[in-house]
Amino acid sequence: MNIENNVELEMQEKVKSFANLMMMYGCAIREVKTKLEVLDDEFSVRYKRNPIATIKSRIKKPASIYRKLKKYGLEPTEENILTGLHDVAGVRVICSFIDDIYMVAALLANQDDITVLKVKDYIKEPKENGYRSYHMIVEVPVFFSRGKTPMKVEIQIRTIAMDFWASLEHQLRYKKNIENVEGHEEISAKLAECADTIAQTDRQMQEIKRMIGEFNDLS
Amino acid sequence: MNIENNVELEMQEKVKSFANLMMMYGCAIREVKTKLEVLDDEFSVRYKRNPIATIKSRIKKPASIYRKLKKYGLEPTEENILTGLHDVAGVRVICSFIDDIYMVAALLANQDDITVLKVKDYIKEPKENGYRSYHMIVEVPVFFSRGKTPMKVEIQIRTIAMDFWASLEHQLRYKKNIENVEGHEEISAKLAECADTIAQTDRQMQEIKRMIGEFNDLS
Amino acid sequence: MNIENNVELEMQEKVKSFANLMMMYGCAIREVKTKLEVLDDEFSVRYKRNPIATIKSRIKKPASIYRKLKKYGLEPTEENILTGLHDVAGVRVICSFIDDIYMVAALLANQDDITVLKVKDYIKEPKENGYRSYHMIVEVPVFFSRGKTPMKVEIQIRTIAMDFWASLEHQLRYKKNIENVEGHEEISAKLAECADTIAQTDRQMQEIKRMIGEFNDLS
Amino acid sequence: MNIENNVELEMQEKVKSFANLMMMYGCAIREVKTKLEVLDDEFSVRYKRNPIATIKSRIKKPASIYRKLKKYGLEPTEENILTGLHDVAGVRVICSFIDDIYMVAALLANQDDITVLKVKDYIKEPKENGYRSYHMIVEVPVFFSRGKTPMKVEIQIRTIAMDFWASLEHQLRYKKNIENVEGHEEISAKLAECADTIAQTDRQMQEIKRMIGEFNDLS
Repeated sequence: MNIENNVELEMQEKVKSFANLMMMYGCAIREVKTKLEVLDDEFSVRYKRNPIATIKSRIKKPASIYRKLKKYGLEPTEENILTGLHDVAGVRVICSFIDDIYMVAALLANQDDITVLKVKDYIKEPKENGYRSYHMIVEVPVFFSRGKTPMKVEIQIRTIAMDFWASLEHQLRYKKNIENVEGHEEISAKLAECADTIAQTDRQMQEIKRMIGEFNDLS
Repeated sequence: MNIENNVELEMQEKVKSFANLMMMYGCAIREVKTKLEVLDDEFSVRYKRNPIATIKSRIKKPASIYRKLKKYGLEPTEENILTGLHDVAGVRVICSFIDDIYMVAALLANQDDITVLKVKDYIKEPKENGYRSYHMIVEVPVFFSRGKTPMKVEIQIRTIAMDFWASLEHQLRYKKNIENVEGHEEISAKLAECADTIAQTDRQMQEIKRMIGEFNDLS
Repeated sequence: MNIENNVELEMQEKVKSFANLMMMYGCAIREVKTKLEVLDDEFSVRYKRNPIATIKSRIKKPASIYRKLKKYGLEPTEENILTGLHDVAGVRVICSFIDDIYMVAALLANQDDITVLKVKDYIKEPKENGYRSYHMIVEVPVFFSRGKTPMKVEIQIRTIAMDFWASLEHQLRYKKNIENVEGHEEISAKLAECADTIAQTDRQMQEIKRMIGEFNDLS
Repeated sequence: MNIENNVELEMQEKVKSFANLMMMYGCAIREVKTKLEVLDDEFSVRYKRNPIATIKSRIKKPASIYRKLKKYGLEPTEENILTGLHDVAGVRVICSFIDDIYMVAALLANQDDITVLKVKDYIKEPKENGYRSYHMIVEVPVFFSRGKTPMKVEIQIRTIAMDFWASLEHQLRYKKNIENVEGHEEISAKLAECADTIAQTDRQMQEIKRMIGEFNDLS
């Protein structure tokens, strides 16, 4: 066998092992989703309400993984992906109310097979552009044929309104590398303003929910 | 065979034919959902965006069907359900933006196998309590083993924000037959107020979307 | 508050706590399904094949739970359901090949959060009527808001052919309480005969798979 | 703008228009699936049984489309795909019993918006290698934003046993370009043999179903 063949074989091995790694992150997402669905089922039956409106998930695209590793000055190896990146597997939990966000986060953090590695509360301290969301990096065990493996998952928890805002902001950011800076700044300003209206709506809805709840307890 | 047996047989027949009828409405929902998914797929590929965020559906519960027939002074027969009720099959379409609502409605109305029986635009003219939504009653053909059958479906189209408001309002209305009128009125007032904040948010988001779009066209 | 009210309240409490219990079994099913899906994902990527063709699940109907408790001479209490019954939550795994059955069973049994309570191998020793399937009773931890709870789940693992046979046999058994014993016996005999043809098919397919595999390894 | 830019723009246009075409085939699959689900729902409620066990679907991969066009001596244009290929969109219907295959086929063929372009009955006349299945090429209308478009879909209808056999045969064919012809031929012979055992099983199961049915009618 000559050198060329060796290189090709090595390439094939790398592609295969990358696919395995992505599969492992996909399975970690399955585990986190199941944990969330169990909690939502329980609340639905025990308290007649669903704290979770929707669960979405995504695995980071190869190009984004590569870019992020480069940004951190890391070689694109399996080892560096596993240890250096925290958001290859992402789960987004959309709640109806602000207090559900903190409840879901606390219930997950309390499970003895989950390790919380990091928390960032962008609801208490919104980003400058208006972004609001609760972020957790957790480690969850996944049972593969060769044994139990801890996998990292980023969980973002936010209200319907925060999610709606974020999706618009994402569309804008996506077009960032465009010259017309003036138009861009005007939209950014509008978006920041809108983020405030949305936060206000969330607080109003939370307040109404509280009132309906109290009202209910009285009667 | 005696009278008692006859009565029982008749009862069994009625139960069976009611189940058939509900199955038929369920299939009508499948057809409408497919039409909506086709439109959303097309927009997703052709214009890189999804006008529809979620599609939900429900079949009216037997008790609600019975109550509504009674309210209209109609006997609970299959015939009366088919001709007298328009919302046994219900599909709810949640859009991101107000202009998507009108686009989806127009695209459905234009399909030559759909007959629009009635339209109510509660966005242009909100209900007194603040309710906003676009309602259509359509008739859609469904192919059963015995042939093509036109079935009625109520389609409600609204934004994410309108939907969120409606779900809270529904929770409140559900507790309506409760004495503490004062608390109830206070919450109703709050909800009406909140409906305005939400409508304002929808207009802001629509405006930002328009600006991003223009911005995009320029560059 | 009088006695009648007390009785009614007690009834309501029982209904609610039964619903909670069934929800808990439903969540245990979710956990087992996720474990199976993870294994299938892994094989799909790592070995380019899916050992599992389908996963089905069911929760035992209240009437069946009641009948089984009665048969065992147990009162219909929550405690007796949890300790006395093993098949309230049922998961059925349909595999393509016989050896996949044993592999899936072994991989589950090896997971350190699963306890295998009982195994019955109706493939090695088929029932008299021809029934073939591998049964496991396992205990799996589920994380509810109040903490981790071990729940029992019955897992039945069988090939597509065994499953097909069982569904026909089930249809027949369902009509058991019918007088025409002669016809019944004739069909039972035919079914037992057919079970043998099916077992033979499974062995042939397994053999072909083995040959394709070897063939593959050689080249 | 120079020539290079023109070429690139043209390429981009082609990629986009190919994606649109594949989306259209995907929507045609949605329509056919809905038609099948409606029929299965109806039978499930009206006759308490499901003629359809599973529905699978796939869109032909770009590489396969290209190869097939080349084989037919056609240029890879959108027009040639639409007129020259019949199996870009494929739906596979898995039935429990042989007679369900013919019933499903007849019910589809009878729907006045479906045009049957071609039928091949590989059950009555199996392929030499043992392949059994009922194939239909149909044209079904799909409602896009620009109007109703007829789209071609290939529908393959077969029993569970036929499907199982075909999946094994597919695995073998996949490894065809391998030298060890001897081993290959031995497996092919085994597969052909197994196809007969499977056809026999299907006939036995069909016969038992018929007997259960009659048995039922008598009592």
